[in-house]
Amino acid sequence: MAIYTCGHTTPDSDSICSAISLAYLLNKIGREATPARQGEVNPETQFILDRFGFTAPELKTSFAGEEIFITDYSDRGQAPKDIDEATIVGIVDHHKLGDLTTSAPLECWIRPVGCTNTIVKEMYDYHKVEIPKEIAGIMMCAILSDTVIFKSPTCTDLDIKVVRELAQIAGIEDFGALGMEMFKVKSAVEGVPVRELILRDYKPFDMHGSKVGIGQLEVVDLTIFDAVKDELQADLDKLREEEGLHTAALLLTDIMKEGSEVLVSSSDASIFEKAFDKKLENGKVWIDGCLSRKKQIIPFLEPAFA
Amino acid sequence: MAIYTCGHTTPDSDSICSAISLAYLLNKIGREATPARQGEVNPETQFILDRFGFTAPELKTSFAGEEIFITDYSDRGQAPKDIDEATIVGIVDHHKLGDLTTSAPLECWIRPVGCTNTIVKEMYDYHKVEIPKEIAGIMMCAILSDTVIFKSPTCTDLDIKVVRELAQIAGIEDFGALGMEMFKVKSAVEGVPVRELILRDYKPFDMHGSKVGIGQLEVVDLTIFDAVKDELQADLDKLREEEGLHTAALLLTDIMKEGSEVLVSSSDASIFEKAFDKKLENGKVWIDGCLSRKKQIIPFLEPAFA
Repeated sequence: MAIYTCGHTTPDSDSICSAISLAYLLNKIGREATPARQGEVNPETQFILDRFGFTAPELKTSFAGEEIFITDYSDRGQAPKDIDEATIVGIVDHHKLGDLTTSAPLECWIRPVGCTNTIVKEMYDYHKVEIPKEIAGIMMCAILSDTVIFKSPTCTDLDIKVVRELAQIAGIEDFGALGMEMFKVKSAVEGVPVRELILRDYKPFDMHGSKVGIGQLEVVDLTIFDAVKDELQADLDKLREEEGLHTAALLLTDIMKEGSEVLVSSSDASIFEKAFDKKLENGKVWIDGCLSRKKQIIPFLEPAFA
Repeated sequence: MAIYTCGHTTPDSDSICSAISLAYLLNKIGREATPARQGEVNPETQFILDRFGFTAPELKTSFAGEEIFITDYSDRGQAPKDIDEATIVGIVDHHKLGDLTTSAPLECWIRPVGCTNTIVKEMYDYHKVEIPKEIAGIMMCAILSDTVIFKSPTCTDLDIKVVRELAQIAGIEDFGALGMEMFKVKSAVEGVPVRELILRDYKPFDMHGSKVGIGQLEVVDLTIFDAVKDELQADLDKLREEEGLHTAALLLTDIMKEGSEVLVSSSDASIFEKAFDKKLENGKVWIDGCLSRKKQIIPFLEPAFA
């Protein structure tokens, strides 16, 4: 039986690229594997796939009876609905340890680094498998995306070292320029429905029993949101009601100014305000230096729900 | 702040030895670490420590405010009571994925192999740290213990390869003989109170909401239990009542005959009987070929509680 390699719901570039890079590795070591994805490919990821000549992995939302090697998450909130009927044979991830459990031993490669593909590179090295040029290219782009071209506080020395190695394999001389090109594609939000923007890189969390949903948009210039900010705010309210969330938030991250404006819709906004010791003004607040949802939002917001 | 490396409650040789071997590695890569243990050292482990000149790690049951690198488990049932007030910086383990979660990224080295120390060896190789002779000795013994000298179905080719490498480093020519010597020490149960026997290698589980406790004794000849079997059975009933367990069981494993007699005390024994498609006789049943609680008991018993 083939193993499906697959990242989280609302896949980002790391989820899609790690599914592809991991599947290639598994096949090379004699374990038949097929990459899959749980949702639509976003524009940034499409740019990466096109750039290195890949098509998107198979769209697959049901895994009952299948073997799955999970990439880029370890919590139920981001898993397929029928994950309990699947066999999780492995997890490669760089987030906090989530609430997935298994009934049999498995392999977990979880590291506190900036990107899952940095860990997939470690797996290639461990298994002494050569990385093809094109695979190296998508892995490199995923790391540049997740680490916001090394600007994110989640970025480690290892991520930088691995990007340099992958750039060499991929034959990319100026990976910084490619990274900026990628973020410009990501910044193209004109004409996109607001709901699509909120959900483009959206993650649901269970914070001590409260449902919280947080989206993030990373762009090279925040002013592109000026015209739609009110509409985004109104749609966050709507999303919160529809999904029965305690809090829905959207991070508008300016990767050049290195900070985020956070739009918050909450049934009790004081929890968010307490977590960050900041007052919301019209449901918004600028957090200077904040680039990472994982490292600069979740670890503060989650304990505030305890 | 020093990191505590520490295995599960009711520590076995793997839990104690991996705490020592991992702490040494962390110190070598510049992360101050101290090995600890959550409970008494059993006779087999004492034999290993004596054989290679180690003293037992510090006894420690409270970890509030501390950093902890967990070895040999990943579920709350085997963690210190105040684990939520500690920071889990890492997990190295070879069991199914348990229900511990974290609020920040961490490193997990989890592999479907026979012993945690097999994975610690991988960590030494990854960090290119040389293993001292004595550390190699205790790591090797832990693997021989967990894999029942390679007889357990949990034993993988990697465990065997690692034992051979560690034996060479430790300068042990006949590791099989050392393994048998170790299991003979483990088989010395005369005069030991029955409760101590039940708890010597005991693990609590949460099986879909039901509390289940399973102990295991691995010996070279099962007849040594003939005189105390009734007493063991009665004490299982008592333990079940005291701890509010749905089921309490004890595996009496004969490593030469390669099978286990299971003593069962249960509020509904039909669950056990259904799981293994076997009838208990006077609360007992022989399961041929059964050497591993992890691989031959839990994966069958747990789904039966669903």
